[in-house]
Amino acid sequence: MTKDRQIAIALPTVRRLPMYIAVLEKAAQDGQAYMSSPQIAAVLGLEAIQVRKDLEAVGGTGQPRVGFPIRELIAAIETALGWDNATDAFVIGAGHLGTALAGYRGFARYGLSIIALFDTDPRKVGQTVHGKEILHIDKFADLVARLHVHIAILTVPAEAAVEAATRAAEAGIKALWNFTPAKLTPMDGVIIERVDLAASLAVLSSKLSSVVRSAEPAKPEQAGQI
Amino acid sequence: MTKDRQIAIALPTVRRLPMYIAVLEKAAQDGQAYMSSPQIAAVLGLEAIQVRKDLEAVGGTGQPRVGFPIRELIAAIETALGWDNATDAFVIGAGHLGTALAGYRGFARYGLSIIALFDTDPRKVGQTVHGKEILHIDKFADLVARLHVHIAILTVPAEAAVEAATRAAEAGIKALWNFTPAKLTPMDGVIIERVDLAASLAVLSSKLSSVVRSAEPAKPEQAGQI
Repeated sequence: MTKDRQIAIALPTVRRLPMYIAVLEKAAQDGQAYMSSPQIAAVLGLEAIQVRKDLEAVGGTGQPRVGFPIRELIAAIETALGWDNATDAFVIGAGHLGTALAGYRGFARYGLSIIALFDTDPRKVGQTVHGKEILHIDKFADLVARLHVHIAILTVPAEAAVEAATRAAEAGIKALWNFTPAKLTPMDGVIIERVDLAASLAVLSSKLSSVVRSAEPAKPEQAGQI
Repeated sequence: MTKDRQIAIALPTVRRLPMYIAVLEKAAQDGQAYMSSPQIAAVLGLEAIQVRKDLEAVGGTGQPRVGFPIRELIAAIETALGWDNATDAFVIGAGHLGTALAGYRGFARYGLSIIALFDTDPRKVGQTVHGKEILHIDKFADLVARLHVHIAILTVPAEAAVEAATRAAEAGIKALWNFTPAKLTPMDGVIIERVDLAASLAVLSSKLSSVVRSAEPAKPEQAGQI
């Protein structure tokens, strides 16, 4: 029952689940034991009916007039997401972004544990960032197999993305979290999920640039330093 | 002409522009002076016709049989994105993610310069991360006005997102880059662009979890340590 449940959860629900965890944990910290779907919905600006459906999808069972027991509900959501067990991940590309992600302690909250970084640059290989070693990419396939790592976080430059992704797939990586600006073509047996910071910032900059230009057409003011 | 051009660029094109910069810079580093749209397309796995249209949209003019002059083309794309001038930004929320972003040196490449972080936590206020000061949120509105800062990067917890966004809008922030799991409702005169790491990871985890469970139903193997 529990095993089958997760597969049935719709992706829009999956995307909202982390926000519920955040709200529930805050309430637990504040000493609350129960929280109702209208309460959760109010905090997040969502519809109560949507929140209730999402929580029912992970098997949360609320009590009338009381709501959901917070600790149990957090555990149910974490199980649904597979965040109840720490999942090891490798970072491919030890540049600025790979290094920043390796140091982002928030991933621990999501059950994601970055255990090493890989790069081709001999100046980087052998160094340690945030307590994690940078290894040569030639060691990647062997370590994926030995350590049963399923997730690779891709932070190589755009032009190296396709080669790195192919290499990861051949090594047996099952899920690629693609932070490069490159769009990867689907590969058999490999889940690809993309976070494109550069594209997102490009959209923001481009819209902002239009707004600022139309507001201050003559001479944009110079921002100073604190 | 140049002023109007940018407004006309379609968002899908805008999203691809950073990728072209990356490829062009790599080619320039390798000593190339010209690059054709089929060459760029081949590196990125795109259609040449799409690349040519995108590059024409930013005013790039290629020469037959030679291609685009790389340096000029990079400059044209940067102008189109507003990345040719450094844009100052504030980070609201000096937690793990805010701190990681403040230390991400890759933003400099996109003309984005984080000049300070803001938080409400008295234990954080006054500290310095990656050479940037953490200030109390009460100073935010004054500094936005004095320094003409247009962009705020939102990295507060989900339940604090709506309040922080409202505060930023009231202070005169024109663009919010929302890294919180909260979906913000549109506000007049404020551009909102979202990067939801937690949701993206939730989708990845949830799909991976199904794949791994169906492949190893009996007893998932334990990943070890290096």
